[in-house]
Amino acid sequence: MRMSAYSIGVDLGGTNLRVAAINREGHLLHRVSEPATFHSGPEKVVRDIVDLIKNLRARLSNRELTGVGIGVPGFIDIEAGFVLGSANLPGFEAFPVRDEIQRHLGIPIILENDANAAALGESWMGAGKDVKDLVLMTLGTGIGGGIIVDGKVLHGFLGMAGELGHMTVYPDGNPCGCGNWGCLEKHASATAIAAMGRMMHFQKENVTAAEVYELASAGNERAKLVFESMGRALGIALANLINLFNFPLYLVSGGPLPAWDLFAPTMFSEIRRRSFTFGRTGTRIEKAALGADAGLFGAAYLPVQHERSFAEATG
Amino acid sequence: MRMSAYSIGVDLGGTNLRVAAINREGHLLHRVSEPATFHSGPEKVVRDIVDLIKNLRARLSNRELTGVGIGVPGFIDIEAGFVLGSANLPGFEAFPVRDEIQRHLGIPIILENDANAAALGESWMGAGKDVKDLVLMTLGTGIGGGIIVDGKVLHGFLGMAGELGHMTVYPDGNPCGCGNWGCLEKHASATAIAAMGRMMHFQKENVTAAEVYELASAGNERAKLVFESMGRALGIALANLINLFNFPLYLVSGGPLPAWDLFAPTMFSEIRRRSFTFGRTGTRIEKAALGADAGLFGAAYLPVQHERSFAEATG
Repeated sequence: MRMSAYSIGVDLGGTNLRVAAINREGHLLHRVSEPATFHSGPEKVVRDIVDLIKNLRARLSNRELTGVGIGVPGFIDIEAGFVLGSANLPGFEAFPVRDEIQRHLGIPIILENDANAAALGESWMGAGKDVKDLVLMTLGTGIGGGIIVDGKVLHGFLGMAGELGHMTVYPDGNPCGCGNWGCLEKHASATAIAAMGRMMHFQKENVTAAEVYELASAGNERAKLVFESMGRALGIALANLINLFNFPLYLVSGGPLPAWDLFAPTMFSEIRRRSFTFGRTGTRIEKAALGADAGLFGAAYLPVQHERSFAEATG
Repeated sequence: MRMSAYSIGVDLGGTNLRVAAINREGHLLHRVSEPATFHSGPEKVVRDIVDLIKNLRARLSNRELTGVGIGVPGFIDIEAGFVLGSANLPGFEAFPVRDEIQRHLGIPIILENDANAAALGESWMGAGKDVKDLVLMTLGTGIGGGIIVDGKVLHGFLGMAGELGHMTVYPDGNPCGCGNWGCLEKHASATAIAAMGRMMHFQKENVTAAEVYELASAGNERAKLVFESMGRALGIALANLINLFNFPLYLVSGGPLPAWDLFAPTMFSEIRRRSFTFGRTGTRIEKAALGADAGLFGAAYLPVQHERSFAEATG
């Protein structure tokens, strides 16, 4: 037991680069952040990450650093420490992110997809603390997610598992940029809420998801329909997940979460109808607990988990 | 290395009770079977299983028996060794199947759901020998399946994971006994093939799935439409699985497999459209290799796997 050891989680988000020092009991010791600089290229981002980590390390020089985990918005080759592909990180493909940071710091670095890191964070210190298996669905401009099996991220073949947003919920539904029709994220993301709102011809021309939410909260019946549609699509997808995984817990997070009371009734009604497992097993569908910090916690947990599995494997 | 050790797999199928002795290298040493006697109650079935196992044990008395695995058509409480629920095993609920058999034989018994056992069998000695993660979809009167993660069965909360047949493929599709509409098994099982065939008003009144297959194979255009529909539903479900799991391999097995060339074209066309992961990763969709023996192999592998994880955990 090294009570003074800590690890560092990095969240390479679309708006901010955030770095946190978290101890092994999951207490946040210190955090720093600065505006994201993706568009200055990977070398600059690596320097920024290294500087922020050095900053935290200096403040915590009396403690031992276990390692650094980094949540990245893209597909990751975990073994190689590369970003395989990302719409949000131009120029990062084939750039050895992990090895570059490791070279500057001389400590182990682990990369992970940001949604997977968020799911791991919820599993470690958030709404999933009491279970070993869960799915986290993140609602934003798109819909992503992470799948935790026995406390660990399910990666799949090339780390592309958990693409919840591209599950088909309506075979002939809205077209999606991925080439499909009726993807979940075309019927239940913040972008979909705004698009459905625009179809409703509210007084304002380019209504946003937040404005549709305000209208619905104020009792506007047409705006409420938007969230009922959203809930229906979520329910179809969640019922499929429940039937497939039979996990005890499914978490929903992201910007549209405040609209829970508007979309949850149709969501649960669809789930009850479409999953006989749901009713029989006390399956829980809940709001995630850590909000935007889930990814930071998950990233910080990666080196801790890595050390523990290594210790287990070697007795 | 105990070259002479073997384990026994039991497949408690709807028609036959089958028992096989299989060595640790996956070679079938001996097999016996007799008609299933579910309706005589669990005590009789347990006696039959015990007799067949004793029979095999006597023939292989010069070898060491590692343990016995039993594939059961129902939901299993793995820890307790009970059948939680099964449409096919009347009277088995709350009957201590595992402990009763164990009491008679004095060796470790492991229960598993039959579709999970089949998936494990394909993973051990079948079409999935070269991968660690796969999904097996079994087409029959219903549609079941098993999910293998890192070489092990994914159980979920109460062993109910892998209910592939109740994924919603058409939100307003055919009604299902589970309370849902548009379950995969109502659009792609052998039962669904027969039902679609009947809607086509072929000369014969109560056409069977096999007869629809014969008609389609002989070039009947309406019968071909049935398999094109089946392929489309399978493709929607498989695309969802690929997007969720990003596994390297998805296997299809069961009675309708000979119709592969009739349903596969629409199946692959839907998958290509609905999963961007599919095309990018060389994901394989293939026929399972072991046929009706998959469950026997998987059941026999259960005690071998259990012994190995025990050895790993204790160094």
